[in-house]
Amino acid sequence: MMSTETISAISTATGEAGIGIVRMSGEKSVEIANSMFKPISKKSLTDSENRKLLYGHIYDGDKLIDEVLIAKMMAPSTYTREDVVEIYCHGGIISVRKILNMTLDRGARIAEPGEFTKRAFLNGRLDLTQAEAVIDLIKSKSEISYDVSIRQLEGSLSGKIEEIREKVMSMTALIVANIDFPEDEIVEATYSSLNSDAKDVIKSLDELIENSNRGKLLRDGINTVILGKPNVGKSSLLNGLLRDERAIVTDIPGTTRDVITDYVNLEGILLKITDTAGIRNTEDKVEKIGVDLAKKSIEDSDLVIAIFDGSRPFDINDEEIINLIKNKKSIILMNKSDLSRVVSEKDIRELLGDREYLDISVVGQGEILKIEEQIKNMFFDGEIRENSEVYVNNLRHVRALKRARESMDEVKLDIDNEVFLDLLEVNLEDVLSSLGEITGQTTTEDVLDKVFSEFCIGK
Amino acid sequence: MMSTETISAISTATGEAGIGIVRMSGEKSVEIANSMFKPISKKSLTDSENRKLLYGHIYDGDKLIDEVLIAKMMAPSTYTREDVVEIYCHGGIISVRKILNMTLDRGARIAEPGEFTKRAFLNGRLDLTQAEAVIDLIKSKSEISYDVSIRQLEGSLSGKIEEIREKVMSMTALIVANIDFPEDEIVEATYSSLNSDAKDVIKSLDELIENSNRGKLLRDGINTVILGKPNVGKSSLLNGLLRDERAIVTDIPGTTRDVITDYVNLEGILLKITDTAGIRNTEDKVEKIGVDLAKKSIEDSDLVIAIFDGSRPFDINDEEIINLIKNKKSIILMNKSDLSRVVSEKDIRELLGDREYLDISVVGQGEILKIEEQIKNMFFDGEIRENSEVYVNNLRHVRALKRARESMDEVKLDIDNEVFLDLLEVNLEDVLSSLGEITGQTTTEDVLDKVFSEFCIGK
Repeated sequence: MMSTETISAISTATGEAGIGIVRMSGEKSVEIANSMFKPISKKSLTDSENRKLLYGHIYDGDKLIDEVLIAKMMAPSTYTREDVVEIYCHGGIISVRKILNMTLDRGARIAEPGEFTKRAFLNGRLDLTQAEAVIDLIKSKSEISYDVSIRQLEGSLSGKIEEIREKVMSMTALIVANIDFPEDEIVEATYSSLNSDAKDVIKSLDELIENSNRGKLLRDGINTVILGKPNVGKSSLLNGLLRDERAIVTDIPGTTRDVITDYVNLEGILLKITDTAGIRNTEDKVEKIGVDLAKKSIEDSDLVIAIFDGSRPFDINDEEIINLIKNKKSIILMNKSDLSRVVSEKDIRELLGDREYLDISVVGQGEILKIEEQIKNMFFDGEIRENSEVYVNNLRHVRALKRARESMDEVKLDIDNEVFLDLLEVNLEDVLSSLGEITGQTTTEDVLDKVFSEFCIGK
Repeated sequence: MMSTETISAISTATGEAGIGIVRMSGEKSVEIANSMFKPISKKSLTDSENRKLLYGHIYDGDKLIDEVLIAKMMAPSTYTREDVVEIYCHGGIISVRKILNMTLDRGARIAEPGEFTKRAFLNGRLDLTQAEAVIDLIKSKSEISYDVSIRQLEGSLSGKIEEIREKVMSMTALIVANIDFPEDEIVEATYSSLNSDAKDVIKSLDELIENSNRGKLLRDGINTVILGKPNVGKSSLLNGLLRDERAIVTDIPGTTRDVITDYVNLEGILLKITDTAGIRNTEDKVEKIGVDLAKKSIEDSDLVIAIFDGSRPFDINDEEIINLIKNKKSIILMNKSDLSRVVSEKDIRELLGDREYLDISVVGQGEILKIEEQIKNMFFDGEIRENSEVYVNNLRHVRALKRARESMDEVKLDIDNEVFLDLLEVNLEDVLSSLGEITGQTTTEDVLDKVFSEFCIGK
């Protein structure tokens, strides 16, 4: 365990609530808390049993600050592997702030974002993928993204990376063992074995990389834009998606209020639909054909749902819409497929080429289900429920995996060319180093700072 | 302890934060939690020591839900006096909701707002003033209101009420003791003693009632409106008040966002200043002379700061402003007292009558201090720091005190008229009953429902 400053922070969200928590970690935690706390029973915090909740009062000198529960948790069996004290006080803003300030006055310093978890990482309790899972857990807004993160916290990704690392290390071991015995048969056998191992490693890396897009969607949701001229049924569609009772994430401070986005829960996956306010702007622009805002929304989206109106002849705006989405994943709806339709199948083919579309007359529950089905097919091969597969949902991991893949390609090429065995080692080292970055074995201070800066304070 | 359903709720605020808490209270708490929790050590929650934090995992069947700390606290030494379990899980929205739902699936029911505290009250752990202090604590936005509430939680108000009750009960005892001995001297002595006691009780009640306005201001802050025609220096004043570094409450979800109000911290007292947006509306209306919105703001305010411009002749709008504030506590500022002044002292007297005013030329730190000084004098006799006095800050308490006071007046009158001793008893009973309402000894279910409905869920 490192000898470090004692840090302190409010670990609960701000707001009117029953309980707030001030947490300290570090050598002086118990001493600081003890100097503020008068227990109801005779045992002081210092003398109390490890991990026992004591009831008592926080005093600042003679002044009563709050009635609290408090517990000390002694190193090394704690979150940070350091001595930890948690003070459970009244919620709201005043008590937690007063108690936090008292800990600072008595020698703690305010924790940086993610510093508790950073210490857990530095002290070997978590690897870096697990530390990153902690913040993903806290930030997750859908059950599936939560599930992916909790598995990552339990070491699913680390385990997968470790498997690959071991395979690479066994390649290195084989090279080292044979490097001094350059007899032909042995070399032959070695290249053959290395070749098979390299293929395995590349396959494993490719699986993780391929899954990463899905992992990102699981974590962040599917950015969706609904596109169409005015009065083609966009708001019915949005309402249809939102009305669905399984759905709708509300009450998330910092999301729905700041960004005007509607969230639809599609069997645990979030559809993040740019709000009608935004869409209305977009529409006006599309009417004026291809303006920046619409283009930008579409560019940033994972999915466009485009609605066309079959009860009016197509015009240049419809063509423009098709043009805008030509490189995007999209679902095309042909509305008003009932008696009022005026466009012919030929018109539709002229507009859409060989793209598929869904005929709809009204946006009812059946239509919504069809659309959802299509989304599942597009993004998750029809099967949205996540299984025990490992999903890479973090750009940092994807980049490191791709670097490992590139180095592995060179290894493979060298093996095919039967270069001297010792020349292979450099690239294999690069693979190990890239993989080590993911789990934090070979991560720089800069990367750590970046990872933990995305945390909230108090974790 | 009552046999009751087991209740469950999220006890922390919603938001991205390190830790969230799900709390249960009731007979089945431990059983329910035990069925969800797999400890790392061998001891199950059921077998674990009382009040010991266990580390482990919440599982829903085979599915891992979260990594948690958990503690059981066995009746009767708990907040509710019932068995309590607290589960400390990852913050954010998903984990706490999943765990809450699991407790509900296993037989708990969702707690009503304030139900934990209501049980603490019903089981005799807190009286009603203390229960009310809990929610005041959580909602308090200034140090002083917090301090008043924490003292109330510790029983300061209960103690004061109990003192008065005892005095009243001793009067009743004296009456009962003497009722069968109607000898003249004894009766004489009894009336004299009762008279002295009655005076004491009335004095104590009056002190509490008089303090209640101050108590309300301590708790809720001083509703302040800044009033004046356009371009007289209102925004400089507001900025001056806000710029003060001692000040400004921010980051309180649910307050600053919903109501557009600026908060200025005046030595621990909140000035709640209707935001300039609001004020601008008000101004326009005032220009059009006496429109509802301005009147309403002023009516609801505790204090009006009216600014006049001495560099232009007064007009009908200035008269209207003076008219609007004639029955309000107000501070009058005469701006532009420098060379540019055109109004004479006679003009000012014609406008203001014998009201005092402050001459200011610019709104600098000195002016702000003068204004603050005047506010302190107006509301707190110049002495804002609260001492150990008991403040009644709750309208329900004030009403009950006033009823007790009215009954006591009748008692006093009866004593002065030397009515038969047994006739005094009825009114004395009324006094006791009114006082008992405050502490909850004689409170109806309706009152309880109302008190606890103002709580947040999870407390």
